[in-house]
Amino acid sequence: MSKSKRGFLIALSGPSGSGKGTIVKSLLSQRDDMVLSVSMTTRAPRPGEVDGVHYHFVTRELFEETIRQDGFLEYAEYNGNYYGTPSAPINQWLAEGKTVILEIEVQGAEKVMDHRSDLVSIFITSPSVEELERRLRGRGTETEEVIRKRMKTAQYELSRAFRYQYVVLNDEVELATARINTIVDAESMRYSRMENTILEVLKDVSTQ
Amino acid sequence: MSKSKRGFLIALSGPSGSGKGTIVKSLLSQRDDMVLSVSMTTRAPRPGEVDGVHYHFVTRELFEETIRQDGFLEYAEYNGNYYGTPSAPINQWLAEGKTVILEIEVQGAEKVMDHRSDLVSIFITSPSVEELERRLRGRGTETEEVIRKRMKTAQYELSRAFRYQYVVLNDEVELATARINTIVDAESMRYSRMENTILEVLKDVSTQ
Repeated sequence: MSKSKRGFLIALSGPSGSGKGTIVKSLLSQRDDMVLSVSMTTRAPRPGEVDGVHYHFVTRELFEETIRQDGFLEYAEYNGNYYGTPSAPINQWLAEGKTVILEIEVQGAEKVMDHRSDLVSIFITSPSVEELERRLRGRGTETEEVIRKRMKTAQYELSRAFRYQYVVLNDEVELATARINTIVDAESMRYSRMENTILEVLKDVSTQ
Repeated sequence: MSKSKRGFLIALSGPSGSGKGTIVKSLLSQRDDMVLSVSMTTRAPRPGEVDGVHYHFVTRELFEETIRQDGFLEYAEYNGNYYGTPSAPINQWLAEGKTVILEIEVQGAEKVMDHRSDLVSIFITSPSVEELERRLRGRGTETEEVIRKRMKTAQYELSRAFRYQYVVLNDEVELATARINTIVDAESMRYSRMENTILEVLKDVSTQ
């Protein structure tokens, strides 16, 4: 409740087509205490991608130097390119009391879970597989093969949902956004976050 | 979200003067899916106390028979009288999808925590010790000695708040009630409660 409190680290995962990108946009537009972590990568920017917005595009040398300095919450190599979540801005935001969102795939999220006990992990799912596929096709930009591959990945991701603390149904973006806000509000009432309030009252009782 | 889901068991504790009784009344008046567990006791009813409302007033024989049948979530003996939380109605309500509230002192709540991993435990506190004392005095019915004794008990109870999952500040009854509703809503999105949704989607992906 107090402004001086440490922020939250939230991992949001969900299959392609679960609508997590839209939910993140909706959250960020509603709450100015929320920020989105931007990943670092060594791959080249695609047309339209902006450095510092979609990714921090860096050299292999800088990425590997950051690994050596233990500067990632998690990182991985895919198809010869590195992808990672830099710790420094996240720690800074948390200290400022911000809620930091990691929009992260399942394997990355599981690595963060293993190291950050303060992580609030949320898995987003569409209400049905038809809806998932409809959203994938809705983009109208993907081949049948790509869609089948994404469905396979979705199957794997859904099978790992049990690792997450919360599951949020994305039947409507507004509802899903409200649900995440509810989770954040409840998490702010965890004993560990309210301990100072208790200790204040306790101190006063003791000195009466 | 589904009506067929198992209900919640909530332990609400807090020092005398924290206003938990008022909050419970407010919750029960707002939500018809919430019920209040009624304790069983062998002590005699006080003037105005109604059997089945304030307590189930029973004989020592019946109470001890219920102990033998493992029929209490927790029980204790104070000043020669038994007090206990009967399991049977609680299990029935949970199966019906109700949210069951235990308004329970700290020692009883800790016993329930040790046996029920599904318990949602909430500690209610007033914002300051002055407020706590003001509320105790506000009743205008207690002697100085009783008030001092209650403050001692409050001190003990506050020192056990760390055993609870959540701490709810009761600065205003309406706000505190809303906070508890937020906790219940967030808890309903726990993976364990959403597993069926995930399994449904997963089953459909697998059969595509």
